[in-house]
Parts: sequence; structure tokens; C-alpha cells
Amino acid sequence: MKPINIGLIGYGFMGRAHANAYRKVGHFFPQDRPLVLKAVCGRDGALARAFAETWGFESTETDWRKLIARADIDLIDIAAPNNVHAEIAIAAAQAGKMILCEKPLAMNAASAAAMVRAVTRARVPNMVWYNYRRVPAVTLAKQLIDEGRLGKIFHYRAKFLQDWTISAEVPQGGAGTWRLDAAVAGSGVTGDLLAHCIDTALWLNGGIAEVSAMTETFVKRRQHAGTGKLQAVAIDDASAFLARFRNGSLATFEATRYARGHKALYTFEINGADGSLAWDLHDLHRLQWFDHRDTGAVRGWRSIHVTDRDHPYMKQWWVPGLQIGYEHSFVHQIADFLQGLRDGRAAAPTFRDGLATDLVTDAVLRSARTRRWQKVRAR
Amino acid sequence: MKPINIGLIGYGFMGRAHANAYRKVGHFFPQDRPLVLKAVCGRDGALARAFAETWGFESTETDWRKLIARADIDLIDIAAPNNVHAEIAIAAAQAGKMILCEKPLAMNAASAAAMVRAVTRARVPNMVWYNYRRVPAVTLAKQLIDEGRLGKIFHYRAKFLQDWTISAEVPQGGAGTWRLDAAVAGSGVTGDLLAHCIDTALWLNGGIAEVSAMTETFVKRRQHAGTGKLQAVAIDDASAFLARFRNGSLATFEATRYARGHKALYTFEINGADGSLAWDLHDLHRLQWFDHRDTGAVRGWRSIHVTDRDHPYMKQWWVPGLQIGYEHSFVHQIADFLQGLRDGRAAAPTFRDGLATDLVTDAVLRSARTRRWQKVRAR
Amino acid sequence: MKPINIGLIGYGFMGRAHANAYRKVGHFFPQDRPLVLKAVCGRDGALARAFAETWGFESTETDWRKLIARADIDLIDIAAPNNVHAEIAIAAAQAGKMILCEKPLAMNAASAAAMVRAVTRARVPNMVWYNYRRVPAVTLAKQLIDEGRLGKIFHYRAKFLQDWTISAEVPQGGAGTWRLDAAVAGSGVTGDLLAHCIDTALWLNGGIAEVSAMTETFVKRRQHAGTGKLQAVAIDDASAFLARFRNGSLATFEATRYARGHKALYTFEINGADGSLAWDLHDLHRLQWFDHRDTGAVRGWRSIHVTDRDHPYMKQWWVPGLQIGYEHSFVHQIADFLQGLRDGRAAAPTFRDGLATDLVTDAVLRSARTRRWQKVRAR
Amino acid sequence: MKPINIGLIGYGFMGRAHANAYRKVGHFFPQDRPLVLKAVCGRDGALARAFAETWGFESTETDWRKLIARADIDLIDIAAPNNVHAEIAIAAAQAGKMILCEKPLAMNAASAAAMVRAVTRARVPNMVWYNYRRVPAVTLAKQLIDEGRLGKIFHYRAKFLQDWTISAEVPQGGAGTWRLDAAVAGSGVTGDLLAHCIDTALWLNGGIAEVSAMTETFVKRRQHAGTGKLQAVAIDDASAFLARFRNGSLATFEATRYARGHKALYTFEINGADGSLAWDLHDLHRLQWFDHRDTGAVRGWRSIHVTDRDHPYMKQWWVPGLQIGYEHSFVHQIADFLQGLRDGRAAAPTFRDGLATDLVTDAVLRSARTRRWQKVRAR
Repeated sequence: MKPINIGLIGYGFMGRAHANAYRKVGHFFPQDRPLVLKAVCGRDGALARAFAETWGFESTETDWRKLIARADIDLIDIAAPNNVHAEIAIAAAQAGKMILCEKPLAMNAASAAAMVRAVTRARVPNMVWYNYRRVPAVTLAKQLIDEGRLGKIFHYRAKFLQDWTISAEVPQGGAGTWRLDAAVAGSGVTGDLLAHCIDTALWLNGGIAEVSAMTETFVKRRQHAGTGKLQAVAIDDASAFLARFRNGSLATFEATRYARGHKALYTFEINGADGSLAWDLHDLHRLQWFDHRDTGAVRGWRSIHVTDRDHPYMKQWWVPGLQIGYEHSFVHQIADFLQGLRDGRAAAPTFRDGLATDLVTDAVLRSARTRRWQKVRAR
Repeated sequence: MKPINIGLIGYGFMGRAHANAYRKVGHFFPQDRPLVLKAVCGRDGALARAFAETWGFESTETDWRKLIARADIDLIDIAAPNNVHAEIAIAAAQAGKMILCEKPLAMNAASAAAMVRAVTRARVPNMVWYNYRRVPAVTLAKQLIDEGRLGKIFHYRAKFLQDWTISAEVPQGGAGTWRLDAAVAGSGVTGDLLAHCIDTALWLNGGIAEVSAMTETFVKRRQHAGTGKLQAVAIDDASAFLARFRNGSLATFEATRYARGHKALYTFEINGADGSLAWDLHDLHRLQWFDHRDTGAVRGWRSIHVTDRDHPYMKQWWVPGLQIGYEHSFVHQIADFLQGLRDGRAAAPTFRDGLATDLVTDAVLRSARTRRWQKVRAR
Repeated sequence: MKPINIGLIGYGFMGRAHANAYRKVGHFFPQDRPLVLKAVCGRDGALARAFAETWGFESTETDWRKLIARADIDLIDIAAPNNVHAEIAIAAAQAGKMILCEKPLAMNAASAAAMVRAVTRARVPNMVWYNYRRVPAVTLAKQLIDEGRLGKIFHYRAKFLQDWTISAEVPQGGAGTWRLDAAVAGSGVTGDLLAHCIDTALWLNGGIAEVSAMTETFVKRRQHAGTGKLQAVAIDDASAFLARFRNGSLATFEATRYARGHKALYTFEINGADGSLAWDLHDLHRLQWFDHRDTGAVRGWRSIHVTDRDHPYMKQWWVPGLQIGYEHSFVHQIADFLQGLRDGRAAAPTFRDGLATDLVTDAVLRSARTRRWQKVRAR
Repeated sequence: MKPINIGLIGYGFMGRAHANAYRKVGHFFPQDRPLVLKAVCGRDGALARAFAETWGFESTETDWRKLIARADIDLIDIAAPNNVHAEIAIAAAQAGKMILCEKPLAMNAASAAAMVRAVTRARVPNMVWYNYRRVPAVTLAKQLIDEGRLGKIFHYRAKFLQDWTISAEVPQGGAGTWRLDAAVAGSGVTGDLLAHCIDTALWLNGGIAEVSAMTETFVKRRQHAGTGKLQAVAIDDASAFLARFRNGSLATFEATRYARGHKALYTFEINGADGSLAWDLHDLHRLQWFDHRDTGAVRGWRSIHVTDRDHPYMKQWWVPGLQIGYEHSFVHQIADFLQGLRDGRAAAPTFRDGLATDLVTDAVLRSARTRRWQKVRAR
């Protein structure tokens, strides 16, 4: 079968996560079309070559336009910082490439909408890397909800807690810390962490109608890693909001990089009339499930060790009881994308789904600024 | 030594919890002044007599005014529904009685302020039964904060989750369900559950400056247990708010009676630059503690089993490893009140502290109504 | 109704636990016959008087023979060290008293058998204070087993871990440390801690056929608290054994006072073809339950918060979600004993049940000494 | 640099785990010598070719003697059933190949000793795949012990619980179930599961002096997957033993495939005078650590989320908070083996270490048979 030639843009943390997924997917999820790591593109040629060497990319580029112009590239994977997503994606769409884009889709919803228009017009397959949908325990949560096991939903709560920027010595800008530079990241934890929470929530619980938010920047000035200058921090260090979903349920969302003791504690819980579900990223292979229909005296939260053959994706891996980790969510996502290609249907989350999340983060930031409840705008 | 003659008003859930505390306190916390269960007062004379029989009260009353009028009563303990707290407390203060009052202090802050004025004028010892301060793990949290172990505080989050009113068959009004009747309870979970969260938070983290809240009533109509009529539900079933503390930290608070799988899950977490603390009522004998000053590779959340002799209150009970339960928080509170009498200083939370919580719950309800951020008014 | 006049022997840790149970039982479990704390007996008269003062005993004795001789005593409660259980109990039986005795029943099975003969001949109600059977979660485990929910049993494992004697500075003998003095305690952790594990196991899983054991004394010499002399330690500091139950299941048992980080971690787990149960004393209000008949993909260990009204004993206490503690197991045991009196049937564990445990601990000590598998002798 | 040409024997569960490790190691642990997947060998040529296709092996063999005879093979990796380990390894050693061998090393210690002699004589690098040493949390445990943080060791306890053979319908023999066929597996859970527990224990706590064991076969007859005949089951379904380590500490070990609710629950705990450690395979990314030198009131078991850059191996993977899984232990093991080659020192566990474990499992089986304590023989 015809191979799929991949051009990856970005060789940072996410570049590695994607390259690993491409390398592994065929070992565990049989594919008819081979994936070929055709080229990796990054501004620093030496770094790009080292990355290509490690991961087995056939070539390198330092200008993403050249990559997109190459006829031997079928799929553009954008693992570059947020501020270049839109321009690259729109160009890639115009060139007829399939596009996978890191989250958040864009710097804001207007930009995301332009990306959606571009891929729609070009009719190219597209997906956003909200990888946590593909953690088996999260996918299992979705199945239980779709089966109606929770009944009417009353509450949703999610948070994403980190602690890596508490020190005022952490710079902004630069390779490892561009997420603190508003010019590159767009926003702080709202776009970085809350976006994950929102994507999952929209998937599990439907649309959000309105929000009331607050944000805070605890460390007001940080040195810029590039310029060396101490300058004002423009991102949000912490962001929290109340929400009402369209289905009538209430929600609280919170993200911060100032929660000492938590590295990447993404958690969500959903309470329905008939049952409740909870999950957290620090023990991502478990799902907590309370079934009110169990006999009264033996009701309790079940800690499901999501490693059995009848759990989502797990038949492809090891034997029951042996857990997988973070990286596998990316393998699952590319496996689903490829399955979508075979089946002729789009694998979610598409750019359209990515836009839906950006519409919520826009409303969150607008609410924090205006100190008013804000409706989430229609896409 | 002169005994302390107690007159208890109310023989419901809280009446039992208080009676048990009076019966036990001297067994574990040596007292010089004996506590005498002089009288219990309730509207139903037969029920009052049965309660007196069970708990060893010497007499009963059916009119609280008569109880207050009795010269042989030193202390009035108000375990009656919220709507009568103020009138009783003010009369008791005027009669020169010591007063212990169930939480929330009053139906609203204006009424609570009148109570504060009454006890201040009468110079009578007074206390509000926010018992969770006296769970040893919570008291230990307070000690760690007072020792400065957490450093600058960034975040506070608390929630109180129950599930007992999900069924539309639960009535409002009546003995077991007056908490659903706005005329008696004042508000729903805001005054009942959030009040606990707020009292602890003010104690641990100082004053709250402003809030943005939302409330919801999921079941709109319920039968009234007294009249039998189906009538509109006027309480809040769920209530959540964002807050900014005066110390600059951000907070989320939430309470509901619609969180399937949780019976009385009161939890709080506080994140500081140097450490974090977390606690929950379903395992009340444990405190979770993360100390950032531990050596890097062996840092971790410590699950402190708060049963050792150097833990608050625990020297008085059994041996290390053997846990106490919910009821003991009441024993500790009365022990501290009696110690305050001996020492000539007020045991917190006083009515003034109770007012502080009511000022926050008032702001929460006002914010939910106006859909605007609301400052917490000064007392 | 005719009161039950209690004579308690011993004013130490267990004396307090029993006194508290007598004081509380009527408040939560309605009784027709009042319990009267008639006398407490201990060798030190001043301590006995102080104890009587605190707990409201009407009188004191310093000679247990005088206590037994008193006509106004109906029930003798033996909370004195192990080496006097038999002599007191046999005398009390001969005097026609009801007898409650702390565990282990005796210094060895021969002595326990004599006690059984005495109460049998005298036909007096008798019970051993293996209180952990009455922790609601443990009672619930028994119910599930009796309902056949576990199917054929394959495995039982129990351990009781403490760490309070690691320091060589802890003396042997004396008020707080008689458990380290073989002359008073009989054995070390075998009789003190394993006895609890064995009592529960016999109750839940039936008889033990044979054992292979090892014991160890880590600290070989300790100062005697009485004599001040450094002398050889004759108790076992640690004891572990393999066992085969009569029902064909295999077991491991272990107890130690040298497990750093555990204060009183009694745990058991039982695995059957259809389900498994686990419990631990450090979170005694929870039962872990795995039901293999749950649908495959949502099977998981359930953490049952044993605080609901349909859980054993819990209807008598507070409201769902509010936990009780260690002391309540004693309240439940005396409540059950009193219920047995009313119903005219013996409340377990009787002296006969206590003997069954001593037969196992004897076999354990014999196996450790002979380094051979030992059959558990018939009673 | 000269590549290392690998010849893998076995394409089952372990064959996949090893192939995946070879494929991944260079992406995360930079290597100078490329690993080349030269050939995979298995009895069924079609299956071998499919495996080679999936994993990118250059060629296949159906006769392991031919594989060993090939000059283009540098390293023989034995992932075939236990009964062929010795013959293959000895031939491979004679052919001068490096050898990696699945655990247990052999069918018994005598056979293992022959393998040790062969690799010693041939001076070929050799290693046994006891992969759990390389779970970062386990390696961290080893570091803490080596730093002396636990003080004198009193107790070690380990168990490995599964539930996959409870049904009498599970056959013995054949591809997926050879572990139930004594002729192929040598023993049941003793060699399969206890061997893992023993390897870790010897590494963490030194040599075992003597053991007292029991074994059981719950299902006495099973159909043979190959012959279709119902025949006696000769393996042990469950195995437990008491042990004394050479350092004076006591231990309990247990393994079973009849513990309902546990899929692969390998756990160990070690108690020292100054601290304790505990770990389990179902949450393999966490280490539980109790440090007695922490200040009294805030002592508690720390749940260390072993995902930070200063944790063993973790700097090579993702960012703090993001967990790895089971498969990564194999990647670490091959990385360490390759590092050992570069450094000119053997990476443990070598065949000599594998023999040490077989000497213990032999003693366990001998003890179960003789019902006597058995010394572990010297190697």
C-alpha cells in the first residue's frame, strides 16, 4: 500500500511524543499503509539533524514553507509553538496536506476559525492533539456516559495542577519556557492546561453555555530567556472558572502552575443521577466509578485498573494488570486517525472541535478581563 | 467546684451530637466543674422526655423562653433550626446565659450581627458549633500553617459533596428535612455546607475579599412534609463560587447535594510556595502533607495518620494507630470552650467568627442573584 | 427493669475502653436493664479511686477476690493482664457471675480450657473481648461471606503491624509495658496481635488445620520496669506462620512490633472464586470489595465507606458519611452481649471461641519451637 | 560504530516485550552501536515471518541451532519457554554469543548452574530478564537502601497475586498456557511469579538462609491444549513461604493465580529501624516511603510519584508528572546492558544472579515437598 509520508514541524517535547507515536503505532496497531518519517523541520538545523538521527527521519528542513512545498510530504504535523499554528496550518491546507496540529488549535478563536475554514475548503483530514481523550480510562469514561450509565448529569469538575513556575527564577521565552511568553503562547494556563480540561469536558458532557472566570499572574516580572531582560509577565499563571453546560449541569474548572506538590495533576469528575466517574492523570491507568444501581450495602467507588483486554485499546498491548503510560495516548490517537483514513470518516477532535475549545478559552479570558459572566460564542 | 448547668434546645441530629459530647468530655478531658444536663427543650414534649431519658437530662421544657427564664440554667445550647437561632440567642444573652449555637449562626449576616451585639453587650461566653476545626487533622493543618510551613499561599479549594436529595421524592420541611425548607433553613447548601468550608477557610487562610457565585435548584418542586402540598423549592441545591482572599490567594468553593457517591465529602486543599495540605471528611483521621523542603527524589505527599500522642487532642484518647471519628470533634469543641472559661479567654469560633462566615455566605447568595462579583462586607 | 451491676477489674488502656463502652451503649442502643458501674478493682487504690471518679464507678476494690465476693455485682469484666485471667474467671464463674474477659483468653490453651469448663459448669454468660469482629466493616465482611458471595475460598492473609518496641530503651514489665514481660503476657505478638487476626479468621473462614511458624526476638535484653534490672526478653517480637484451613484454603499470618511506619495496621484479605474482601484497621470504616460478577469492563475494587444506615450498627450512630472509630467496636460488643442476654443466646466470641484461638496460638508457638508443621489440637 | 546484531528466540508475549525494547532504546537512551534486529526464531515459520514483518526483523529461522550457527548474530535473546533455556544458552555460549535469557533462568538450580558454567567459560556477556529491577520506583528503593536510609532491616514481605487460572476451563500446555504445563514451565507460580519476588528481594535485602514453604494445586486436572486430553496438573497454583535472610530479617512470600481481583499485583515492603519502603506493580510509578527521621507530628507514608528528572531513568522520558508503564522496564534493562558493554562490566542480574534465585525456588519446592525448613544451598 501507498505509504504516508510525514513532515513533522517541531523537535521539542511534543515533537518527541509524536515521533515516538509514529514509530510505535505499527507495532501494536497493524497498519496497511506504512508511515514514513520523511522530514523533520525546525529553526535550528543542527538540532533538527540530531533529532532526525535519533528518530530516523530521512531529511530535515529549517523553513516550514519548504517542507510544505515538498511533493513527497503527505501529512504535516505541527508540534511548534502556538503562535505559528494558524499560518502553517492554513498554508498546509492550501497545499492539500493532511494536518495534525498540537493544542490549543490557535492563539484565539478567530484564528482557529480561519484554520477550520482552510481545512474545510481544502477537504484535508485534520486533527488536534488533545491526546487525553485516548487514555484508555478516559475513553472508558466516554463509553459509560454514552451508554447512559450516569443518568441526568448534575456536576462536572476539572482541574489541572502543576508547580513548575513557582520560582521567580524561571525565565519566560526560549526553548523550554515559551509557554510563559504571551507573544508565543497566547495565554498561560488557560490555553495550555484548561484547554485540555475543556476538550475532554465538551466531549464527555456537551457544550458549555456560559462562564465566570478569574485569572492571576503571581510572578509579575521574569527575565526573558532570549533577550535577557526582566520584563512584565503577560500570561495567566492561574485561571479558574464557573460554568453552566447546555445540558443544565454546573461546573468548576481550575488550572494553575502554583499548586505545590502536583506535577501534572489533571483530574475530572462527573456526577449523574445514577452514577459518578472520576479520573486523574497521575494514575492515568485507573478509572473511579460509582454505580448507584449496585446493591445498597455494597455500593462503593470502584477503582478500575484499566488494563484488561476488554478495555479500550488495551487488547493491543500487554497482559491484564500491566499498565501503559502517558506516551501511549499519542499512539492511540494516531492509530485512530489512520483508522479514520481507512474508514473515510474524520477522527476527533478535528479542527472544528479544537475551535470549540478555543471559543471557551476566549470566553474565559474575556470574563476574567470584564469580571462578568460571558456566553460562549457560537462557532 | 460549681457545676455548669446546661439547657439544650433541640433533640434532633445535633442535639444528640451535643449531648454525647457533654457526656463524654469529662471522661477524656479532666474537668473541675461538673457539667450537669439540667434540661432539654423541644416543641414535642413526649420526644423531649424520651431524649431526656436516653441522655440523662434532669428535666424537659417545651418553650425555650421558660428554659431561658430558669435560674438553674447557666448555659443555653441552641441545636434548633436556623430560623430561631437569633431570637433565642438574643434572649439568652439578655438573661446572662453562656451560649453555644449551631451553625450557621443566623439566617443572614444582619441577624448574625444582632446576635453579636447581644452577646457583646451581655459579655457572655459564646461559641458557634463549627466542629470541623476540632478534627485533629484539621487542627494539625492549622498548626502547620501557623508555623509558616506553607510559605506564601497561592490557592485554596474546598468542596462539600452530598447526594441525599437527588430523588424528587425527598420532601421539604419537617423534622428530618427542614434543611430543604428555605423558611426554616434560610438557604440550602450555601448556609448548610459551604458555611463549614468558609469557616475553616477563614481560620486557615484569613479573610475573603470578593466572590463570584452561581447557585442552582435542580428539583424545582417538592412536597412539604408538614402541609403535604407540592410547593416550589426555594433553597439552593448546589452552590459554587470563585474567591479572592485578602492575602492574594485564589479559591474555588463548591457544595451540592447532587454528587452521587459522596455522603459527606468535605475536602479542602491549600497550596503554598513551600508546601501543600489536603484533608477530607471521609477519612477524617488523615492529613495529606507535601513538604517541598524534603530532598527532591523522595518528595511525596505524606499521608499522616493523625492518631499519635503528639497530634492535637490525641493524647487524651487511645493509643497510636487507633482512630477516632466524627463525634469526637464535638467533644474537643466543648473541651476547648471549658478550657477557655478556665483561662478567661474566648474559645473560637465565637459569634463574631460566625458572623464573618455569614457575611461571606450573604455575598455568595448576592453574587448568584446579581451575576456579579461581590465584595464581602465588613462586619 | 433490674439493673446489671458491673465490677471491672483493671483500670489501664482496656479498662478505659470498656468503661467508655458501658457509659455509651445506652445512649445509642436502647436498653431496658440499666448498666450500673458498681465497682472498679485494681491493685493501686489511689489509681482505682481516680479512675472511679473519672468514669463514675460507685466504689473501688483492691482485691479482686473481694469484688467477686460482693453480692451486688452481677458481671465481672476482666481487663487485667493475661496471667490473671484464668484464676479470676474461674473464681467468678464459681460465684455465678457473668464474665467478660479481655483477649487472649488465657496464657495457653490448657488454661483456657479450664476457664471454658468453669463457665460451662456454672452456666454463666461469658464473652471474650475480640472487639474487631464488631467494627462495622468487618461485620459486613462476615455478612457477605455468609451470603456466599465469595464462592469457594482459596486464600486468607492477615497481618498486624506495629512499631512501638523498636527502640531498645523500651522497658519490659510495668504498667505500660507488661506486654513485653513473658511472665505476665504469656507470649509476645502471638498472643497479643496474632490472636486478633486468628479470632477474625476463624469467624470468617472456619477452622485452621495446621500451621508452620517462625518467631523472633530482635531485642534480646531489656530493663525490667519493676526491678530495674536488664534481663533477657522472653516474648516473641515477631511471629509469622503459614496455615491450611479446614476448607482447603491457604493462609499467611504475620505480626510484629518492628514494622516502622505502622502503628496498629491490622489487615486481612480473603480471596474466593467469585469475589475478594480486604480491610485494614488504619481506615477501619472502609471495606474493600471486589465482585467478579460485575460486568467485565467496569469491575474494580470497591471502597465501601461503611457509614450508611443499612450497614451493620450504623443506623444507631450519625448520618451517612460520618465515620465512627475504634472505641465503637467495644460499644457494639457490649450491645450485642446485652442483646444476647435478652434473647437467651450467647453472644460470640464466647470463652469456647476464645479457646479455639488459643489452640491456634499454642500450635504457632509449638511450631516455631520445633520448626515443624503442627496440627491445631481439637478443643 | 559496529552494530549489535540480535537474534531473538520466541515471538510470544516476551518476544514482543523485548522487540519493543530494542526498537525504543535508542530513541531515549543514546547509543553509539546501533541495534540491528537480524533474525527472529520460532517453531512456526509463518508466525515468525508475521512477527518479523511487524517488528522489522531482517530474517527468520525455525531452528534455534541455525540461528546460533549464524556468524551475523552477536547476541542471542532467549524468550522461549523455560524448558529450552539451558540447552539454547549453553549452545549460544559455546558459539561465543552474548546471551539475554528470560526468567527463571532454568528448570532448576542444577540446570542453571550449568548455564553459569557455560557463560563463565565462554566469557560472554549475559543477563536474565528480571525486568522489575528497572522499574524506576524499584531502582529508587534500591538507592535508598544502599544509602542506608532504612537502618537495620527487620522485615521483608512480598507477594505476587493473579487470578487468571481460577476457571477450570483454562487448559494447560499450548501457546498461551504453557505456564500451566510442568513439563515446559518446570514449576507453577514458584518459578513464574515468586522468582520475580525473590530476585528483587536478593537484590534489595541480600541472601536468604532458609525457608519453610507450602504449595497447592487447586484445580487438579485440566485439558491439555495440545493433546486435548484431560490430565493431572503438575504445577503449583499457589506457593507461600516463610524465610530468614542472612541479615537476620524475617520474610513472608506468597504467589498465586487464585487471588480474585488481582491481575498482576506484585508487591513488596521492607521495614527497617529508620524507615520503610513499599511498592506495587499495579501502580508501578509510585514508591511508598516512610522516614522515621521526619519530625514526629508530620511523619507519614510518602507517596512518591516517581516521574521527576532526578528519579532513576526518568530524565530520558517525558516531563515530571507523566508516567511510564510496564514496557519501559525492558527498555531500561537493555539500556543498562548496553551501558555495561561500553563500560566493560556486567549488568545485573547476570546468570549467576539468576542461579541464586533458582537456588531459592528449589529450596521452596523442596520444603513444600518435605514439609521441613530447608537451607538455601550455596551456589
